[in-house]
Amino acid sequence: MRYFDYNATTPMSAVARETWLEMTDGFWHNPSSPYRAAARVRNRLEEGRATLAGMLACEAREVVFTSGATEANNAIMAYFARRKDADAGVWLSPVEHPCVRDAARVHFGERVRFFPADSSGRVSPGAVSEVLNARRPALVSVMAANNESGVLQPIGEIAEICRQAGVPFHCDAAQWLGKLPARELPAWGFMTGSGHKFGGPKGVGFLRVPGMWNDFRAQVGGEQERGMRAGTENPPAALSMVSALVARETAEKVGVAERAAWRDAFEDVLLRDIPGVQVVGRFSERLWNTSFLIMPVHPNHRWVMKLDREGFAVSTGSACATGSEAPSQVLAAMGFSPEEARRAVRISSGLETGEEDWRSLAAAVVRVYRDWEDGDASSSLTDVISV
Amino acid sequence: MRYFDYNATTPMSAVARETWLEMTDGFWHNPSSPYRAAARVRNRLEEGRATLAGMLACEAREVVFTSGATEANNAIMAYFARRKDADAGVWLSPVEHPCVRDAARVHFGERVRFFPADSSGRVSPGAVSEVLNARRPALVSVMAANNESGVLQPIGEIAEICRQAGVPFHCDAAQWLGKLPARELPAWGFMTGSGHKFGGPKGVGFLRVPGMWNDFRAQVGGEQERGMRAGTENPPAALSMVSALVARETAEKVGVAERAAWRDAFEDVLLRDIPGVQVVGRFSERLWNTSFLIMPVHPNHRWVMKLDREGFAVSTGSACATGSEAPSQVLAAMGFSPEEARRAVRISSGLETGEEDWRSLAAAVVRVYRDWEDGDASSSLTDVISV
Repeated sequence: MRYFDYNATTPMSAVARETWLEMTDGFWHNPSSPYRAAARVRNRLEEGRATLAGMLACEAREVVFTSGATEANNAIMAYFARRKDADAGVWLSPVEHPCVRDAARVHFGERVRFFPADSSGRVSPGAVSEVLNARRPALVSVMAANNESGVLQPIGEIAEICRQAGVPFHCDAAQWLGKLPARELPAWGFMTGSGHKFGGPKGVGFLRVPGMWNDFRAQVGGEQERGMRAGTENPPAALSMVSALVARETAEKVGVAERAAWRDAFEDVLLRDIPGVQVVGRFSERLWNTSFLIMPVHPNHRWVMKLDREGFAVSTGSACATGSEAPSQVLAAMGFSPEEARRAVRISSGLETGEEDWRSLAAAVVRVYRDWEDGDASSSLTDVISV
Repeated sequence: MRYFDYNATTPMSAVARETWLEMTDGFWHNPSSPYRAAARVRNRLEEGRATLAGMLACEAREVVFTSGATEANNAIMAYFARRKDADAGVWLSPVEHPCVRDAARVHFGERVRFFPADSSGRVSPGAVSEVLNARRPALVSVMAANNESGVLQPIGEIAEICRQAGVPFHCDAAQWLGKLPARELPAWGFMTGSGHKFGGPKGVGFLRVPGMWNDFRAQVGGEQERGMRAGTENPPAALSMVSALVARETAEKVGVAERAAWRDAFEDVLLRDIPGVQVVGRFSERLWNTSFLIMPVHPNHRWVMKLDREGFAVSTGSACATGSEAPSQVLAAMGFSPEEARRAVRISSGLETGEEDWRSLAAAVVRVYRDWEDGDASSSLTDVISV
């Protein structure tokens, strides 16, 4: 099977697998225990933390290992909602991942507001300035790259506007990390990442907590992570994640433009051969790996099923939203109708994906489309069922 | 090194390691994705959930996989504190793990109350009845087995009293599971477990959420775990944990009494050869693997250091509390002075521990003690430093 759902999860990289095994076999002691074997584990964990901090341009003590981005994003919202200035509310981009948006809603209730965005879901720095000139939110949260469309937000500028206004800023970088260089992310503010999005294991992620917020608590009941996240540390997963990101940061230096060109060529074929297909964010800055399509006919699950049989794994959108039948809120925020959203297909490649994979996928999508068209032309019954 | 800190963490069992690798290599897709490869992962995850549910005497839909016991216990407290009847407060045993006690304090504030306990920290069912006759708490939480002393609580009776009174009951079974049979735990109420305490991987645990509490939410932002715990599932860790527990449930059927006898013989040697040593909970029902000692002289970290050099890994108490210099709250609840608590040494064995290991440890503890006594007799300076 050719895998085109890297935004949902990635296979574990060889270096991450190796690191996990090395830690599990040789460094399994509880790093908080008081003997030397435990200290060796603690040292490895702190080395990993320092390495990650280097990539995130922060101090090691500002890195908190978590069970993933969802935990981290939930914890951020819970933390700022408990603070004295929580009444000022939280401002989000309208295309945040559900684990930011829903957590904001749970903890801030009606005090969640959304920045306006253009038709690709992008928030302009000007819009953020305008809001911060008039108010002082408890928190601003804008993601680095959208999980469905791949569209990038101008987070460098937005982070700087927040910093100058003295407003806390959070960036969910789960989809950026491993695809684009970490050093291009803002060095200021809270930041979230997820191991399994870049070749690390599942069940591990991290949060950058700027030093001044040292009363941050994700979980209580232990002194782990300098008291910011209680619970026995998971050194095999943490070190495995860090090794995966180190590998990506090196690999990412080559080929991003070329890889984007393969994706663009794929989209060119579809735009030429499938009348009415729309490419979301086609003219926006976006990740090199993602193609978010509104197909002209048929609900998206039919496309996914057909392409699955053709040997391609593609998605209907965020895996986190798959369980719910509600159409993508990302597309709603971008002005697409619920009916269009039900025809959305997300395709996302990885470092393992080659030009030939994109070409085969293009051919398969066109083939599936034409088979249906032929079937529809020969049977009006099929037409009724499939629309 | 001979390892005597199994209550802090365990090495990963062979079957757990194998399951983790099988899942990571062959079942790595996101179980929430919409194609067949993902459905295969989902099916495996649900098989694992059903297996665990069978051991916990509940329905599969009542099992929520979490990142560990600390997350689960924090989530329980957050959930009940948000409910309408939260004003009624939460009642705990006085020896709960910090992740129960601290989470209760964070979420219930001053509305945390403690049942009275005997000198081993054990809560009597009568004391629970008395409280529930007079009040109707939002939640009662009593652990199955204490992490420091190994002392067992009469949770079967306490659960039944709560059930009859219509009061929600939660049991942190992190230290019981894998050491004593799961089927002896109460079939009713919330229950918490942690994979790495019984040969599973770190970073994974579970919560049994009785069906009537289906609005329970540990994390939001996705439909995973039937909406009760958002975030990409971690099938390798979940299945690995389940396989570890299955292996333990089989192994546990033999040898518990014999293993307890090895531990008791160890304590007999110390009681004979080290004047003034105290064994916490010696005459209470307790886990077969734990020996919690108050040494007659020297702060516990000196014992740990000396025994480490002798080739034995023992602990000062809960690894979760090691980072803090505060003495054990478990011991405080049992009436020990802070000064006695600073001399506490926790020894905890595992299935891999043999009779000979216990004998060697007894000899080492006595040897260390006598070395110090000899040193003290020959030098009053050492005496001043070491007391």
